Amino acid sequence: MNLKEELVQIASKSREAARSMAKLTSPVKNQILKDTAELLLTRQEEIIKINQGDVQKAKEKNLSSSLIDRLTLTPQRIKGMVDGLADVINLPDPVGEVVKMWKRPNGLQVGKMRVPIGVIGFIYESRPNVTIDATALCLKSGNAIILRGGSEAFDSNQILVDILKTALQKNKVSGDAVQYIPVTDRQAVSELVKLDEYIDLIIPRGGKDLIRTVVEQSTIPVIKHYKGVCSVYLEADADPELALNITLNSKVQRPGVCNAIENLLVHKDIAETLMPGILAELQKAGVEIRGDDDVCRIFPSAKPVTEADWSTEYLEKIISVKVVENIEAAIDFISRYDSRHSESIVTKDYFKAQKFIREVDSSAVFVNASTRFNDGFELGLGAEIGISTDKLHARGPMGLEELTCLKFIVYGEGQIRG
Amino acid sequence: MNLKEELVQIASKSREAARSMAKLTSPVKNQILKDTAELLLTRQEEIIKINQGDVQKAKEKNLSSSLIDRLTLTPQRIKGMVDGLADVINLPDPVGEVVKMWKRPNGLQVGKMRVPIGVIGFIYESRPNVTIDATALCLKSGNAIILRGGSEAFDSNQILVDILKTALQKNKVSGDAVQYIPVTDRQAVSELVKLDEYIDLIIPRGGKDLIRTVVEQSTIPVIKHYKGVCSVYLEADADPELALNITLNSKVQRPGVCNAIENLLVHKDIAETLMPGILAELQKAGVEIRGDDDVCRIFPSAKPVTEADWSTEYLEKIISVKVVENIEAAIDFISRYDSRHSESIVTKDYFKAQKFIREVDSSAVFVNASTRFNDGFELGLGAEIGISTDKLHARGPMGLEELTCLKFIVYGEGQIRG
Repeated sequence: MNLKEELVQIASKSREAARSMAKLTSPVKNQILKDTAELLLTRQEEIIKINQGDVQKAKEKNLSSSLIDRLTLTPQRIKGMVDGLADVINLPDPVGEVVKMWKRPNGLQVGKMRVPIGVIGFIYESRPNVTIDATALCLKSGNAIILRGGSEAFDSNQILVDILKTALQKNKVSGDAVQYIPVTDRQAVSELVKLDEYIDLIIPRGGKDLIRTVVEQSTIPVIKHYKGVCSVYLEADADPELALNITLNSKVQRPGVCNAIENLLVHKDIAETLMPGILAELQKAGVEIRGDDDVCRIFPSAKPVTEADWSTEYLEKIISVKVVENIEAAIDFISRYDSRHSESIVTKDYFKAQKFIREVDSSAVFVNASTRFNDGFELGLGAEIGISTDKLHARGPMGLEELTCLKFIVYGEGQIRG
Repeated sequence: MNLKEELVQIASKSREAARSMAKLTSPVKNQILKDTAELLLTRQEEIIKINQGDVQKAKEKNLSSSLIDRLTLTPQRIKGMVDGLADVINLPDPVGEVVKMWKRPNGLQVGKMRVPIGVIGFIYESRPNVTIDATALCLKSGNAIILRGGSEAFDSNQILVDILKTALQKNKVSGDAVQYIPVTDRQAVSELVKLDEYIDLIIPRGGKDLIRTVVEQSTIPVIKHYKGVCSVYLEADADPELALNITLNSKVQRPGVCNAIENLLVHKDIAETLMPGILAELQKAGVEIRGDDDVCRIFPSAKPVTEADWSTEYLEKIISVKVVENIEAAIDFISRYDSRHSESIVTKDYFKAQKFIREVDSSAVFVNASTRFNDGFELGLGAEIGISTDKLHARGPMGLEELTCLKFIVYGEGQIRG
């Protein structure tokens, strides 16, 4: 059997398992997640031992310490997975909800019912706990999942998938509902994303190259979790305390994530008054300031910013700062350089707030709040499988509801079309 | 300027125009549609004259009479476009609707706001009236549109786009909001669907080859309007009159469209009683019957069906008929052969109706009604840009709401993340 045939076999088993998954009741789905949690705890030593093998190999390959950190499973991280499963158990089951129902003049009763998407191909890198987190959400929403993880976490992912399959089988559900691509060859991704006959959605979560490969090759719909180049804009009338707190929080509370900001836009009227103090606080927090001509003049320890900086996702303690003429210039800047992820305005002006909310075309637009809240838990969706940077189907945090789709249901009494 | 550069120029102008479109008020958008309608009537003679040139060329090329029919514009068809515009004017503007709003424990007020998708690439074939119908929906929902029509309708489409641009400019809106790809070369489609920096969504409407090309090459999200292989299933207890009416209507009321059925499934208990009469009526209506062994035995004038027939979209007066053991077998058949478009059950049994509604994974699932109702007007969405055979974002008829997306909006009072 060649690679393609092997993948077709996996995918067609998933398609079959998806039909059973769609019919499961909430108690059964929750029991599968409970059993998974229990198995994670009872098999903890074994998991950690296998994971140490992956970590050892990563060290031998001289992989970066941040990658090795993400790869490593500890009792605390296993507890994190168990807690995550409990969260998903507590979330309402989205399947079967009729979100709307109306009656047509001919008496037809028409509704839209939430149903699972079907088979989800999930392509991710390095962190093995994502195996459990992502699968929990897919199973709770009634889908089958095909996992393709990073090669460094191969053995760790295998045992986690084994646990998931055991939990499925304990509940008389086919283990095929969770499958792992047993090939680390990159070609497997290229073949997988072309199996549109069997797979309904591809979610890639990883670096730029992975996402580009998937987007270019996939014949299956893709929802990307791509980069975040985000801005805070300080209006002329911004409350000084809010301006400082929101800028600092958006940049330094956790700089390595997609909803942290890379750009700060400052209205020209407060460039000489409010801005220097904020930039000084950012520097104190270890942030490197890169500024346009105005910024460098007013705050001489700033380095000159380059054109490329404005659209770079640093994921580090670096910020690019620009003085702008007015809110229109700020919105123009965002539309030109930012990645439509998370943007915030700090202002006391009602009309400016409303204008920013309406006109900024990002997955989440904030008034007087940190961009760091663009997150499934923080916005109240419960868990999330990622933050979509696409506009279609799911925009922003993607939770259980976004792992379902809506079909029309129509109750008639013999109506025919005239 | 080569082809790619030309397309990039068109698409970047669209991106710019989309920003203005998103800000337009409903009265301005409606006035653009009213002015379009008026111009269609005042320039009717000119339109028909130019269209006759396209028709003449099509005749010289010996294109099929059905294609020539679809290509031809008459005063009546122009009136059809004008009426369509009036319908869209009367539909509520979806942009700006906040579909949900909730409050987080930290006081953040979080909502989901409907906003335009942005730039839509619409690729279609032969019928020039679609130029007006599709554009009207895209403009009303605040989007810019890039049209790529069939080469046979090239001159007809040009004058219709000229009218749309004139209507935009009369209302001080950039004509770039509606653009037409001025190249009939097929390579233009391949290049267009790769401009993901500028275009947010591709909608292909046409034959299998067009759709396959787009799906394989596009790096932009695609919503397909693909084939409909649909079934009616007659349960053992089906009301005889409903069974006859719904089968006939679903097959012969308009056989050449995607929501007409190609397959009829009959419970074995009524195969000898109810089925022959229904098949005879289908024959009377000019339908060719292809049947499995049971059908051919019971109804000898049926031709033997082939395996390929079950998944063929005839779009003609041909029907494939199968006798099934029970509702499970019917649902299995649908899951295996049908294209997840439109399915209907005829039954008096409450539990069977509910089972069918829940378990059949099609864009519209009917109980005791014709599949022909899977249509934007019939289901109450107003106009439609097509019927999506995808599951994500839009499933089934795609109206104004489906031409928008939802962004998160968050009102804070200085909240930061701990």
